[in-house]
Amino acid sequence: MAPDRAPGASTIVPAAELLERRRRAEVDDPTSPVRRFKAALPLDAGATLAPWQVAYQSYGTLNEDASNAVLVCHALTGDQHVANRHPVTGRPGWWDVMVGPGRPIDTDRFFVICCNVIGGCSGTTGPASSRPDGGGPYALDMPVVTIRDMVRAQARLVSDLGIDTLFAVIGGSMGGMQVLEWGASYPDRVFAAVPIATGTRHSAQNIAFHEVGRQAIMADPAWHGGRYLDHGAKPRKGLSVARMAAHITYVSQAALHRKFGRALQDREIVSYGFDADFQIESYLRHQGSTFVDRFDANSYLYLTRAMDYFDLAAEHGGLVANAFRDSPIRWCVVSFTSDWLFPTAESRTIVHGLNAAAAQVSFVEIETDRGHDAFLLHEPELHRAVRGFLTGAALTRGIAPPAPA
Amino acid sequence: MAPDRAPGASTIVPAAELLERRRRAEVDDPTSPVRRFKAALPLDAGATLAPWQVAYQSYGTLNEDASNAVLVCHALTGDQHVANRHPVTGRPGWWDVMVGPGRPIDTDRFFVICCNVIGGCSGTTGPASSRPDGGGPYALDMPVVTIRDMVRAQARLVSDLGIDTLFAVIGGSMGGMQVLEWGASYPDRVFAAVPIATGTRHSAQNIAFHEVGRQAIMADPAWHGGRYLDHGAKPRKGLSVARMAAHITYVSQAALHRKFGRALQDREIVSYGFDADFQIESYLRHQGSTFVDRFDANSYLYLTRAMDYFDLAAEHGGLVANAFRDSPIRWCVVSFTSDWLFPTAESRTIVHGLNAAAAQVSFVEIETDRGHDAFLLHEPELHRAVRGFLTGAALTRGIAPPAPA
Repeated sequence: MAPDRAPGASTIVPAAELLERRRRAEVDDPTSPVRRFKAALPLDAGATLAPWQVAYQSYGTLNEDASNAVLVCHALTGDQHVANRHPVTGRPGWWDVMVGPGRPIDTDRFFVICCNVIGGCSGTTGPASSRPDGGGPYALDMPVVTIRDMVRAQARLVSDLGIDTLFAVIGGSMGGMQVLEWGASYPDRVFAAVPIATGTRHSAQNIAFHEVGRQAIMADPAWHGGRYLDHGAKPRKGLSVARMAAHITYVSQAALHRKFGRALQDREIVSYGFDADFQIESYLRHQGSTFVDRFDANSYLYLTRAMDYFDLAAEHGGLVANAFRDSPIRWCVVSFTSDWLFPTAESRTIVHGLNAAAAQVSFVEIETDRGHDAFLLHEPELHRAVRGFLTGAALTRGIAPPAPA
Repeated sequence: MAPDRAPGASTIVPAAELLERRRRAEVDDPTSPVRRFKAALPLDAGATLAPWQVAYQSYGTLNEDASNAVLVCHALTGDQHVANRHPVTGRPGWWDVMVGPGRPIDTDRFFVICCNVIGGCSGTTGPASSRPDGGGPYALDMPVVTIRDMVRAQARLVSDLGIDTLFAVIGGSMGGMQVLEWGASYPDRVFAAVPIATGTRHSAQNIAFHEVGRQAIMADPAWHGGRYLDHGAKPRKGLSVARMAAHITYVSQAALHRKFGRALQDREIVSYGFDADFQIESYLRHQGSTFVDRFDANSYLYLTRAMDYFDLAAEHGGLVANAFRDSPIRWCVVSFTSDWLFPTAESRTIVHGLNAAAAQVSFVEIETDRGHDAFLLHEPELHRAVRGFLTGAALTRGIAPPAPA
C-alpha cells in the first residue's frame, strides 16, 4: 500500500499536499529525537506549559566527563537540523558549513546539540502542537514565549542529556539572543559563548519589520484568527508577504545590487504589468513561497514576538553589565559590517556590557557586503574566528583534540 | 435635505463611509481645477489614453511673460494639495513648510503649480478613474504608466496653462525622478531644476520593498483582482500592510530609535500577546489605516511600478550623462545623510552624470537623522538651500523680487 494514499482511494495526492502533511507530522512526532517532560515549564508570561517536549539533533560523541558539549541555538526560522538533511525539504543542514567533521564546530571533537525552540514548529512544543487534552492545536492559546523561556527549556534538555556544563553556546541573530540569555541565566553552566550578529534588545526598526510581518499574516482571512489548522487552511499569502519583507532585512543593499541589480527575469524588456519583471521580484516571491512550505504561521508570530520582547538590560535593572556580573564565561562577540538588522553598534553594546562586568571578551567585526545572513553563509573569516576561539577554549577546558585520521 | 442621506432614509452614514465617498468623488470630479484633454496621451507602454484629465492646484500669480512658473512634483503618495488644506482629510498641504508667501518657494514671487500625476487618484486619470465609455473604473485595464508618461502629461498641462518654459521644477523622491525626466525630455522648457532625495533608477532593494507592498495588496481577497470598486470593496488590510512596510523605509533607524525606542504604548509592562504593545507598532498601524482612508490601492500598484521602471541611463543608451547632453538647465541636487531609500550615493550618480554632460550643477548633502522623509519636514538647511538656489536663479532669469510689504 502506498503510504500516502488511503486504501481504495484512487486520487493521487499532489506533491505540495504531501509536503504539507510531512511538515505537519513533524510538529507532534518529529523524525528527530524528542524529550518529553511532564514537569511544568514556567514561562515569563506567568503561565506554565505541561506536558511539553523538545525535539533535537546531536552530532559527535559526548566525552566521559561530559565536558565537550556545544549547544547551537537556531535563528527565527531555523530548526534543529543544523547539519543533517531536512526531513521535509530534503535540503542540507542550515549550518553545515559550520558544523561537521573537521568544520569550525568540529563534530570529531565536540558533541553538538541543536534543539528546536519553544514556540517553534519542528517538534518542540509550539502553537501548532496538539494540546495534551486532545483539543486540537494550541493556536493562540499557547502562552506567548520569550527568549528566556527558550533557554529555560534548553537547560532542561541539556540536564536531561546528562550534561551539567556546556563547553560552548553559539548562535546568530535570535540564536545569539539565546546565547546572551544563557550567559545571563546560567553563567555557571557555560564555559564559552559566541553570540553572532545579534543584540541585547530588538530595535524600534526591527520591531517595526516584525509588526509588518505579523499584520500581513493576521490580515490573511485563511489565518482564521489563528485557528487555520482547524479549518484545514493556511495563511499562505500573508506568511509569504511576511517572509518577503523580512528577507529584505537579511541582506545588504550592496549584495542585492550585486546579485540582482535591475536585471530582468526571463525577458528582454519590461512587461508594463505586475508580473515579476525583475529578478529580485522573482527571487523574493520564491523566498516567500518556499518558506510557507516549511514553516508555521503562528510560530512565526510567536518567535518574532519573543525577539521583540528581548531586552537584556530591562531584565537586569536597566544595565546590560548587570546581566554578566561575575560571569566566568569566555565570550567571543561577532558582527558583520553590512548587517543593518543588527549593526555592529549592537554588538558593541554587548561588548561594553561585558567589559563593564569585567568579563573575558573578544570582539570580531567581519568585513562583508552580505548583510545579516552572512552568519549562515560560507564566510571564511567567521569560520576562522569560531574555529580559533573554540580551539583555544577547548585547550583551556582540557578537551582532547580529535584523533589524527 | 442632508447631502449625505438619501431622501427618506433614516440611517446615519458613518464618518468613515463619508470620508470614503468624498475620496471617491475626488477621483473623477475633484475640488481642484481640472484640465480635460481629448487629444490622446501616448504612453511608454505603447497604449494611449484618451480622453484624460489632470487635476492641479496653483498658488501665486503668473507674471506677464510667464517666466515665473514653478512646477512642484509630488512623491508616491502625494497629490496636488501642496500648500492648501486637503479637501478630504482636512490636513494642511503636504509641503506648506516649503511653498507659500515668504517660504523658500515663494508664492509672492513665483506662480507655483502642482498637479496630481497620471496613475494617481486625486483627480488625474488613474486606475480608479471612470472609463470614458461609462464602463466603470479602469482598474487594471488602465495601461501601466512611467515617470516619463507623468512628465509628458505635465508638459501638456503646462502648455495649456500658457507656459512655455518653467522657471523651475522641484520635487523629492518620485517627484525628484520627475524633475530628472523633465531635464532629460524637455531641456529647453526648464530653467532650473531641483531633484531631492532621489535617484536615476530604482535599486534592487527599493524594487523589493515595492514588490512586498504590491503582493500584500494583491493577496487581500478584497482586492478582487483589481476590481474592488465594482464589488463595493477595498483591500484595506493589504494596502495598510503595504504602507507600513514602505513607511519604515522613509525614516532612519536613528530617528525611529529617538522617537520610539522600545517605549510601550499605554501600558507599564508587555501584554505577552499580539496587541500593539510598543509605540512603534501603534504608530505604524496608524500610518497604515490613515493611508487607506486617503489612497487608492490600484494607484499604489501603478505608481510603485512607475518608480521601479525608472532608469534614466537605460532610456539613454546606458549613460546618465547622455540624458543631459547640452542641457542649459541650472541644477541643484539635494540628498540627506540618513536617507537609506535614496542614499547620497544615488545623488552622486546624478551629479556625476550632469558633470559628465558639462551641466551647471550644485550639490547639497544635508546632515540629518530623519531619513528619506526629511524632504517633507521642517529641515532648515534644505529650506535655506532651496531658497538660495531659487533666488539666485530668479535673479539670472530676471524675475522681479516680491514687492516689499
